[in-house]
Amino acid sequence: MPDREGPFHVAVLTTGGTIEKTYDETDGSLRNVSSVLDALLKELRLPDLTVTHLPVMSKDSLDMTPEDRERILQAVRGALAVHDAVLVIHGTDTLVETGEFLHENLMQLTAPVILTGAMRPYEFRDTDALQNVTESMLAGRLLTPGVYVVMHGRAMAFPGVVKSRERRTFARSG
Amino acid sequence: MPDREGPFHVAVLTTGGTIEKTYDETDGSLRNVSSVLDALLKELRLPDLTVTHLPVMSKDSLDMTPEDRERILQAVRGALAVHDAVLVIHGTDTLVETGEFLHENLMQLTAPVILTGAMRPYEFRDTDALQNVTESMLAGRLLTPGVYVVMHGRAMAFPGVVKSRERRTFARSG
Amino acid sequence: MPDREGPFHVAVLTTGGTIEKTYDETDGSLRNVSSVLDALLKELRLPDLTVTHLPVMSKDSLDMTPEDRERILQAVRGALAVHDAVLVIHGTDTLVETGEFLHENLMQLTAPVILTGAMRPYEFRDTDALQNVTESMLAGRLLTPGVYVVMHGRAMAFPGVVKSRERRTFARSG
Amino acid sequence: MPDREGPFHVAVLTTGGTIEKTYDETDGSLRNVSSVLDALLKELRLPDLTVTHLPVMSKDSLDMTPEDRERILQAVRGALAVHDAVLVIHGTDTLVETGEFLHENLMQLTAPVILTGAMRPYEFRDTDALQNVTESMLAGRLLTPGVYVVMHGRAMAFPGVVKSRERRTFARSG
Repeated sequence: MPDREGPFHVAVLTTGGTIEKTYDETDGSLRNVSSVLDALLKELRLPDLTVTHLPVMSKDSLDMTPEDRERILQAVRGALAVHDAVLVIHGTDTLVETGEFLHENLMQLTAPVILTGAMRPYEFRDTDALQNVTESMLAGRLLTPGVYVVMHGRAMAFPGVVKSRERRTFARSG
Repeated sequence: MPDREGPFHVAVLTTGGTIEKTYDETDGSLRNVSSVLDALLKELRLPDLTVTHLPVMSKDSLDMTPEDRERILQAVRGALAVHDAVLVIHGTDTLVETGEFLHENLMQLTAPVILTGAMRPYEFRDTDALQNVTESMLAGRLLTPGVYVVMHGRAMAFPGVVKSRERRTFARSG
Repeated sequence: MPDREGPFHVAVLTTGGTIEKTYDETDGSLRNVSSVLDALLKELRLPDLTVTHLPVMSKDSLDMTPEDRERILQAVRGALAVHDAVLVIHGTDTLVETGEFLHENLMQLTAPVILTGAMRPYEFRDTDALQNVTESMLAGRLLTPGVYVVMHGRAMAFPGVVKSRERRTFARSG
Repeated sequence: MPDREGPFHVAVLTTGGTIEKTYDETDGSLRNVSSVLDALLKELRLPDLTVTHLPVMSKDSLDMTPEDRERILQAVRGALAVHDAVLVIHGTDTLVETGEFLHENLMQLTAPVILTGAMRPYEFRDTDALQNVTESMLAGRLLTPGVYVVMHGRAMAFPGVVKSRERRTFARSG
């Protein structure tokens, strides 16, 4: 089925993650400092879309606490009230935990909630960040209400998704 | 709705177009010579997909004849028999003509047929080629059978699509 | 010998050429419209240099007239009075003519005059523009007064330089 | 002065350093694993040059020992016997130590020895690696025998060079 007509409003909540790790030349470290989303979006042509960037936090997802996930849930609920799709940029290490948590706690969804990120930071020349965000923007238009991970040419609904470390991507569990 | 499980086979038919124009340093020309698809696909991570590249022709779409469109139709029919989605890389100038022609002549589709291309050739640093092919690959998994153009964050079903020269993108007509 | 100490002032005169050809999506043309130098310089780290950009013209060098070359000569003379090195960005097709003309008409040089350009426009992903401008900036510090072409790892003094079309680079004649 | 005529042979000794740090997606680390030189050289047009890549080691220069520097010295001596210029790719943190050591121990040089590296790894989109290696290749043709660091538009002879952490570049000391 094609996407719907008329203005389409996407909220992009950034929480950090590998995708947004940046390199500090003074000490050679790779850390989450601030969001790279605005630079990334400049590379895309999305003439029929309005994108609102809502920075929630800037964390490696291995460091996320239950309180962090609760904050993300609240932010998603708020964004859902006034947007046609909600993207959550998230570290891949615990993306599944957050996806399952959102799936369990978001009732009667009226729009798709899409988690995405990257295996290689956007700052790198061989990053998958651009591909995954590109896919997520289109998926926001095409998917029915639900909670999903979109990455590497796949759109998978929660529950029942795992991170495959060997294949460095996401897959259905079981 | 999420994409289906199991192996997914995409056929990519290349016909030329702006996306594939390459620069000749000896005479400064920009022409369709050969396909850039394989170089472009190397930039994408599509671990759960098999892609078959079927070069059909290498033409600026302004130069396409009714015989060319008939050839494309035959190639699409053949690809549909053994693939889960068919992408057609096409010049944007007459993409709508080919889309309408395919829509009128393909009966009882079992898979989506997706036309895409680019406003700026893949050879350029600011190309939209990668974005559009990325979107088309995911769209191949998500769209129901039909004939579509996918570009710049939109997936629009034929009939009723136009190329908007001022906005340099595609839109619904009327 | 190493480069000299203290502040170093480079003038970059842009005249157009292949290096600066940009793509017009509305009609698919590749033309000299405006200078790409400022975008290109943003990619370089030159902390001990001040660069002044002096746009002289925006022409394919095949279209240059004797009056154009006279204008370039006057601009170079003016820049030499207040800079430590002068770069001239020029189309490669008649770069040799301009180089010979400058060599014949610039007396008692106090700084190097370096002509450079590119075989592939800066707008392309596989451009040699960045390499050639990078080399020219360093060459401005290292070369003794004279008129040169710097490109593809070579710095050749006029007179006696030719464009090699088969090898798509410059070489010494005879 | 212009560069000399005839075939020109450059040896590039790689020792690791920031320039060559690569990202491991399985554990998010940035480490010296192998050389990126061959990928980097593919981006340059050097038709009149032969480049021989001699991997010496793959170390962060903070981890270099006196034995490591002795190995580099031996490798440079060997390369000088059969090349017209020798480049040493080195981490920036202790590049000065190695430069001073080479300067003290290389007698009667017949060719320039050029140390270079990068403040930002080649794997990053905003790397200075390409600029610095490009400059070093041309400097190999233009500099008189001696030991130098070439980076960010500067060619500075040892002794008397320091790494400026605040300006994230090299400068003359005192």
